[in-house]
This record gives sequence, C-alpha cells and structure tokens, in this order.
Amino acid sequence: MKLISKADINAMDQRVRATMINCLWGYRSAWLVGTQNADGVNNLAIFNSIFHLGAHPAMCGMVIRPDSVARHTLANIRETGEYTLNSVHIPLVDRAHQTSARYSELESEFEAVGLTPRYFEGYKAPCVAESQINILLSFEQEIPVALNGTLLVLGKVEAIQMPENCLLADGFLDYQALNLAVTQGLDAYMPTSTVERFAYAKPNVMPKKLRPS
Amino acid sequence: MKLISKADINAMDQRVRATMINCLWGYRSAWLVGTQNADGVNNLAIFNSIFHLGAHPAMCGMVIRPDSVARHTLANIRETGEYTLNSVHIPLVDRAHQTSARYSELESEFEAVGLTPRYFEGYKAPCVAESQINILLSFEQEIPVALNGTLLVLGKVEAIQMPENCLLADGFLDYQALNLAVTQGLDAYMPTSTVERFAYAKPNVMPKKLRPS
Repeated sequence: MKLISKADINAMDQRVRATMINCLWGYRSAWLVGTQNADGVNNLAIFNSIFHLGAHPAMCGMVIRPDSVARHTLANIRETGEYTLNSVHIPLVDRAHQTSARYSELESEFEAVGLTPRYFEGYKAPCVAESQINILLSFEQEIPVALNGTLLVLGKVEAIQMPENCLLADGFLDYQALNLAVTQGLDAYMPTSTVERFAYAKPNVMPKKLRPS
Repeated sequence: MKLISKADINAMDQRVRATMINCLWGYRSAWLVGTQNADGVNNLAIFNSIFHLGAHPAMCGMVIRPDSVARHTLANIRETGEYTLNSVHIPLVDRAHQTSARYSELESEFEAVGLTPRYFEGYKAPCVAESQINILLSFEQEIPVALNGTLLVLGKVEAIQMPENCLLADGFLDYQALNLAVTQGLDAYMPTSTVERFAYAKPNVMPKKLRPS
C-alpha cells in the first residue's frame, strides 16, 4: 500500500495533483449545463460536480469556480435564473468533452461542437436535443465557500424530459438502457455494466438482491 | 418523450419520488464513512453524496440529512473532527449496502456486517481494511441549507492510502483496475467498462483521445 500524506499532496506538480484529486472521489455523471445570456447567446458547458441535494423539493447542487471557464455559465444563471442539465450518453462523449474548451462568450458551444438547442416551453435556457435526459432548473441560492473560493449553486427541478420507458414503476431510472456515460476525473468516460439492486437494508437480515424488473 | 412537471413530481408517491430524484443525477461512487464516538464505538455508514470541492487544498463535501440514519456519523464527525472515506469495489457491495440498515448507536456496523477496522497512525476514525482506497479527512466546516434542512459537511484530505499501482504518472487513478463499483440512486451497484480518456479540450481542435498509459 502507498501512503500519501497531506505534505506529499502539497508537494506534487500542480497538474498531477489536480488530476489525482479530481479522480480521488471516484465515479460521477457528467452533465451538459445549458444557459442563455441577456443578449440571447446560448452557452453549453460540461460539469461533473452535480450532486443530489434532496428529493422533496427535488434539488441539486453544483460546484463552480468563479474564475474558471465556467464563469459564463455562472453569469447566465445569475442573469436569467434558469439552467438545464443534459445527459451524456456514450455517442455524445466527444462533443460533450469539447464544450470544456475555452470558447469566447460571443460563441455558442452548441454550434461550435455540433449540438442542437431545444427549449422547454416558456423558458430561455437551452436544452441539448441530442441528450436523452433534460432537466430544467430554477436557480435558488448560491453559497460561497470561503475555504477555497468556490461557489455552491443550488437549484430546484422545474421539469424533466426523458424517454418513455426510462422511468420504472418503483421510481428507478434505467440509465444503463440509455447508455449514459460514467466519468472519472476531468477526462475519462466509460460505460457501465450489469446493474444489481438491493432491497432496503434492515439490521440482522442479510442484504437481499432485487430481481430485475 | 415523457414530460414530468414540478406538479407531477410533487404529486408522486413519496417513495417513488425519492427513488426517482435520487436516481435523476446519474452515476456516483459510494463511500463507506468511518467515524468513532467519544466512547470509542466505531460507526460505518454508506454515503453516495460525496462531491469534489477542490484540489488545492484537497477537499470534498458530503450532504447529510441530520434527522436520518446518518445522524450518528454527523455527531461523531462533530465530536472528533475526523472521518474516513473507504472505497467500495464489487466484492464489497453487499456488505457496504448493509451498513445503511438502522443499527443502534451502541452497535458497530463493522462487526454487524463483517468488515475490519484499521487506523491511520495517531487518528481515531476507523478505516475499512477491506477497502482499497482509504481517505482520512479533517472536518472543516458545516453549512446548513435552509431550503431543505440538509447540511453540507466539508472536509480536507489529511492522508490517502491506496494500492501501489493505482496512481498513474499523470495523476490519474486507475479505479477500474480496482473494480470499484458505480452506484445509482439508493440501491443500484454496477461495474464500469472500458475507459476512454480525452486530451485537454481546445477551441477549434477536434477532441483527441489519449492512448491508454
């Protein structure tokens, strides 16, 4: 086993450290965040820092570094109060990754990478037509984290679009059937393999597998 | 395509809604969070709400609902200022899931589910010997989210233990070689498949795949 201390981490090359710590927390989903600025220019940026905040109301958080390439996304969310999350399945991985390039604020990443904007009726924030899951969010709160200068952006679900057969009877969403990608770190994408589900755990009862529905 | 509005979500059966919204944000890693109380009783609980907060200093956040089964974890983190994250690979999935059962605070989940505590020298928070990645964290800050009564618990990396060959030269951590599980929602676990990595994206250059190292 290799022991890496805080001093070792601090002494690492900056890029190696950024890659390692971004990888450290493991797997996550990537989402394309769609926004529009006051001049009607659409922006699309890939984020892998979306996290579940609560089911009722349905809310998520997102970590944004205000001085990063994500600054246009942040400015647009503040301006319009709206944003969308758009899923990334395996055939979309290269175009999704390409949205992380530093395009100017006058340029829409939709055109630059070859994706199609679509809209929830009555809303300005663009969705990605090629994505299978589109989530419309309203901006609720931002929380500055003084420890490292990041912002936590919290949003509430206004609407969801998904393929008809994605939602199972018990509420489970069959993302594997959609071939959604898993990401790790800043640059790795991969498919998942066979899902196993377990019953709600109770003390003194061995874990029970659910049958595939 | 199916359109699910906020009103539809609010009208859903509570358990179906909880399952759906927990699934909605896609894939994530599960971590076993190890803590100890002031009486020396170890606690172990599975969390799937760990998120990357920053690389320098190396920090993560975790969402905790103070009135949930996670309340012992929260109390212990506040008391001792220490906690560990321990990885879940496929052979550990059933025991990891079982830690979510509502054991009493007098009972250690390590014994109840059959896992072995191990310690970073000089620290009280237990790690899981069976996990391949152990991360020691110091408790830095808690942020209450008034919108839904959750808490964001922020921690800083003090040390990491991992297998010798996990850290690649550029900082990438090869979690697939460790067979780490991906989770979705509250009860689904799965392996990943072949990883593809992309080069840092630049405008007007097509996405380039990195060769496996």
